[in-house]
Amino acid sequence: MNTFGRLFRVSVLGESHGQAVGVLIDGCPAGLPVSAGDLLPDLQRRMGGGAGTTARKEADAPLIKSGVFEGKTTGAPILVLFENNDIDSGAYEKMRDTPRPGHADFVARSKFGGFEDYRGGGHFSGRLTACVVAAGAIAKKIIKPVKIEARLVEAGGSNDIDAVVAAAMREGDSVGGIVECRASGLPVGLGEPFFDSAESLLAHVIFSIPAVKGVEFGAGFASARMRGSECNDEILDAAGRTRTNNAGGINGGLTNGNALVLRVAVKPASSISKGQKTVSMKSGKQAEITVEGRHDACIALRAPVVVEAAVALVLADLMMLEGKVPRVLGK
Amino acid sequence: MNTFGRLFRVSVLGESHGQAVGVLIDGCPAGLPVSAGDLLPDLQRRMGGGAGTTARKEADAPLIKSGVFEGKTTGAPILVLFENNDIDSGAYEKMRDTPRPGHADFVARSKFGGFEDYRGGGHFSGRLTACVVAAGAIAKKIIKPVKIEARLVEAGGSNDIDAVVAAAMREGDSVGGIVECRASGLPVGLGEPFFDSAESLLAHVIFSIPAVKGVEFGAGFASARMRGSECNDEILDAAGRTRTNNAGGINGGLTNGNALVLRVAVKPASSISKGQKTVSMKSGKQAEITVEGRHDACIALRAPVVVEAAVALVLADLMMLEGKVPRVLGK
Amino acid sequence: MNTFGRLFRVSVLGESHGQAVGVLIDGCPAGLPVSAGDLLPDLQRRMGGGAGTTARKEADAPLIKSGVFEGKTTGAPILVLFENNDIDSGAYEKMRDTPRPGHADFVARSKFGGFEDYRGGGHFSGRLTACVVAAGAIAKKIIKPVKIEARLVEAGGSNDIDAVVAAAMREGDSVGGIVECRASGLPVGLGEPFFDSAESLLAHVIFSIPAVKGVEFGAGFASARMRGSECNDEILDAAGRTRTNNAGGINGGLTNGNALVLRVAVKPASSISKGQKTVSMKSGKQAEITVEGRHDACIALRAPVVVEAAVALVLADLMMLEGKVPRVLGK
Amino acid sequence: MNTFGRLFRVSVLGESHGQAVGVLIDGCPAGLPVSAGDLLPDLQRRMGGGAGTTARKEADAPLIKSGVFEGKTTGAPILVLFENNDIDSGAYEKMRDTPRPGHADFVARSKFGGFEDYRGGGHFSGRLTACVVAAGAIAKKIIKPVKIEARLVEAGGSNDIDAVVAAAMREGDSVGGIVECRASGLPVGLGEPFFDSAESLLAHVIFSIPAVKGVEFGAGFASARMRGSECNDEILDAAGRTRTNNAGGINGGLTNGNALVLRVAVKPASSISKGQKTVSMKSGKQAEITVEGRHDACIALRAPVVVEAAVALVLADLMMLEGKVPRVLGK
Repeated sequence: MNTFGRLFRVSVLGESHGQAVGVLIDGCPAGLPVSAGDLLPDLQRRMGGGAGTTARKEADAPLIKSGVFEGKTTGAPILVLFENNDIDSGAYEKMRDTPRPGHADFVARSKFGGFEDYRGGGHFSGRLTACVVAAGAIAKKIIKPVKIEARLVEAGGSNDIDAVVAAAMREGDSVGGIVECRASGLPVGLGEPFFDSAESLLAHVIFSIPAVKGVEFGAGFASARMRGSECNDEILDAAGRTRTNNAGGINGGLTNGNALVLRVAVKPASSISKGQKTVSMKSGKQAEITVEGRHDACIALRAPVVVEAAVALVLADLMMLEGKVPRVLGK
Repeated sequence: MNTFGRLFRVSVLGESHGQAVGVLIDGCPAGLPVSAGDLLPDLQRRMGGGAGTTARKEADAPLIKSGVFEGKTTGAPILVLFENNDIDSGAYEKMRDTPRPGHADFVARSKFGGFEDYRGGGHFSGRLTACVVAAGAIAKKIIKPVKIEARLVEAGGSNDIDAVVAAAMREGDSVGGIVECRASGLPVGLGEPFFDSAESLLAHVIFSIPAVKGVEFGAGFASARMRGSECNDEILDAAGRTRTNNAGGINGGLTNGNALVLRVAVKPASSISKGQKTVSMKSGKQAEITVEGRHDACIALRAPVVVEAAVALVLADLMMLEGKVPRVLGK
Repeated sequence: MNTFGRLFRVSVLGESHGQAVGVLIDGCPAGLPVSAGDLLPDLQRRMGGGAGTTARKEADAPLIKSGVFEGKTTGAPILVLFENNDIDSGAYEKMRDTPRPGHADFVARSKFGGFEDYRGGGHFSGRLTACVVAAGAIAKKIIKPVKIEARLVEAGGSNDIDAVVAAAMREGDSVGGIVECRASGLPVGLGEPFFDSAESLLAHVIFSIPAVKGVEFGAGFASARMRGSECNDEILDAAGRTRTNNAGGINGGLTNGNALVLRVAVKPASSISKGQKTVSMKSGKQAEITVEGRHDACIALRAPVVVEAAVALVLADLMMLEGKVPRVLGK
Repeated sequence: MNTFGRLFRVSVLGESHGQAVGVLIDGCPAGLPVSAGDLLPDLQRRMGGGAGTTARKEADAPLIKSGVFEGKTTGAPILVLFENNDIDSGAYEKMRDTPRPGHADFVARSKFGGFEDYRGGGHFSGRLTACVVAAGAIAKKIIKPVKIEARLVEAGGSNDIDAVVAAAMREGDSVGGIVECRASGLPVGLGEPFFDSAESLLAHVIFSIPAVKGVEFGAGFASARMRGSECNDEILDAAGRTRTNNAGGINGGLTNGNALVLRVAVKPASSISKGQKTVSMKSGKQAEITVEGRHDACIALRAPVVVEAAVALVLADLMMLEGKVPRVLGK
């Protein structure tokens, strides 16, 4: 379903070209100062707006419809809505018969029997990540002073990200990228023994971000090529500090107090103006399409703040589970 | 917690050197033929027994304590227990003061206040994967004719796995590896739109397997280095067959009918007989340890059947959610 | 939390005197015709408006913000919002220091540290039942042709309900009542063996309706006074029809195909204009209050449609769990 | 499913005449002293053994298979098993064709397609309540010094319970009864605002106990006959103490610090040796049966400790949710 979390529970809703997208946050401690303005910095990071990000211009102005009273959370569910305004659905209706390669068009139609809102990707749109970012901004406040920072470390296989993106744009193409996220200041012991390991929960939320195709912690795939004597992190003191951090801050599924480090593979955006081959659902025959409309040449540019939010959601939930966050704050 | 699944729900329990480990399976359709013998082939694959796997010799004889009557599932919860017999805990008590690098020793002690059963890794032991494998064997029956096959494609960075493992053994060291898993015959549309994408659920369970540090689908991390025109899979027909499979069989979080393909990074086993530096929890001073006891030089050798089981658990749940499996079978 | 259901999952939100109340419905099958107009008949039944119900006049106009496209559900989450307009919070601020007997004032303040939105009962207001009714109206469509009907069978201990309510109004007092609900056309076998018995789930949702203090099925409390020979329902045919229905349509926690019958005890509204004794939180001294504002003399008058909705939510979830409702309708 | 609880999560399993029944408890804090002996006093209360309770003599010796190490809980899941020994299934196979009135026979067969273990009620047996009692005994330890006490206040409509039960036994019949349960020493604010009100959760678990047909809190059904001025409990002091307790210790779904009071209607046992009419499933014709085997003339005699356990499970979960119980005890 569209819900995640055990104590800090987040549900997303809405469609790209419908009336609104939004997020319902249940379980937020009471007494936390929250305003729409608090959410804007992260929302603006997500909007991108530079070279390589879509020309769609949504104000992304969050409307807090419930759960906040006199500037503080009440303990009741918080609904944050984003009205959709800058909608241009024409291009999508035209493409209805020819599912875009790499997109959810084909699977959504099959799963929901053609009743899905297909415009702009509908409920499968990357626009839903605004909801995750809004919830993440609240989660970040809860887990203070834990600090989360993600950045794009590579695009199209290169560190010269600007050049790679510019080249893709020129050719009507797109590129993927790798986001690295670090969280510091974590307590030891977050995560649950078996199915709810910290890695499990983090990967769960991160893989729900559209276009994510890989997640690794610490040395990750590189650790599969290591010897144990090389991969094991030497323990330096009784607080558990380690000399290296191949574990990415997690042992046995639990945080070990060192920095949490993870990397996320973001595939290139599927929507490109270059011609692509697909099939006509009606005729069953091959067809060639070019995806019009406004697209990102590199969605990975906008992904770091979404990854941060995903990490914050999980950490808020785990810290509440571990009793590290009181149910009433600021007393 | 130690539970996963919405309709097909699996809970693991037990400790490596306690009385037993086991798995409780709730939501299994009634009428499915299940016997202890049915579980043995996969359990034996997990036991390994060749070069590079531990010398611990548990019969791993599954005892079905409930939920099966006259050879068929009843619809009530199924408890499968494995009694522990071949236990040798001496080595662990000696190491109590010096947490092993790369192990859960330090974090478990911190999280559970020293009350955890530390012997043989306790509840954090790889032995718990026998429970996953047993549940997976039942899940595989449910999702027939879907077929899941995993294999170790690389160890220590090499295809010559035997040689790599032998070298590590000689040196009292260990190596990691990469497991690739493919599932074919899947219906289109498994997975839920946002937080319960097929990738999210699969990664969730797979990251609960001890030693897993990375998961990728289809082209995975390589797709982050591709162009969209290269990464998008051309759609060949109205059934959604694609020419390439960079998506690994999943678009928009939903299965697309092509083969599901994922790769799992397994780090080298932490327990090695080579000397390692750690700390004494009592004195706070540096200490050197060598881990005695019976260990795997390459746990990745035993991982493929565990990954298959993890995938089977998710697919069974998703197929039941999608109404692809009746609640009473064989009528 | 504020969420109920496993496959058909309903989350309520909002405050009586905040911006809005609303309900998020996840898991609704795709292809179901739903419009705001479809929700109005039940919403109007809830509003009451006759003698004995509050003079607060909210239009209760449901705004469907997501999950419906071209008049049909899409399979994505449905958000229904009710904006609050006719708000008069003056009376509540005055009473902040003196918790009203029988109300959530005292407990909410204690639980949420004084951060709760106390105006008009805030998130604890009976206004939240509009959300349940809206979700119930959709659930009723899903479970067709199952039919649910509830009515007030008694108020203040009498069948002459009009007279009882009028007398209470005259005296600035309130009365409770008993609602009986019947559902017919149910399949056999709804409910899960142990913790999710049909009775458990129904009682769970019904007891979340404000002012409910008792729930019984079939002969209920009267069955505690019966002999087994009298209470057991004779089985008439192989379809399970019974001569009597002391079981209220449920055996062993599962529906038995006979009419589901339950009764709900609704206490009198706590808000009365008669003087009542309470305490001043500041001084700790006794205080006398009269609750001004607009109140129901008999909230039980408005309860039947809420009970119907609660029953519908549970039945929709159970029918989906049992595979009686496809995930895509109307194909 | 067979699981209840969010942080303190209990799953029951097993069949009356299978190998075992049992309970898996996840989320129990580490460091709690628990032994099999600790569970015996409550288990013995459940066994009854006096006049009016079944002659089946199970030792009900709990086997703790996991989660306890050196006499204390470890934080890992606790499995408690009860092996079945004193089994006599002959009577049940004979009745397979003629479902017993008032029993789960008919519905279980319908739901599980005839694959259910029908012997002795199988998974629907009252024997499963031993599992609830065992988990409840552990929950009671967690919530100390909260005290829970239930007793049978009425059987067959009379206070002279011995006489009523004796009369029913003489006639091969059974009687129902009413159990009252009180819990004192509760903190203010347990329960969640809407769907997880304290009443909702308590009723949920209590209605999962076989034979329960009604639950009421405080004045319960009597409050439906009261005026508000009579029903509202006057608040005496800033700690929320009230003069009367018509609310049964719960306002707005949250505990108010006064004694929690609830009453449970237990119907008469369905199994009676008196002749009853039912139907032959094969022929569809009427049949008369007398239920042989060992039965309770008054199962309500054994219910109080089960109700206590149900209440304890909910309170443990709610106190953990509210942060009133640390995740590691006794440090």
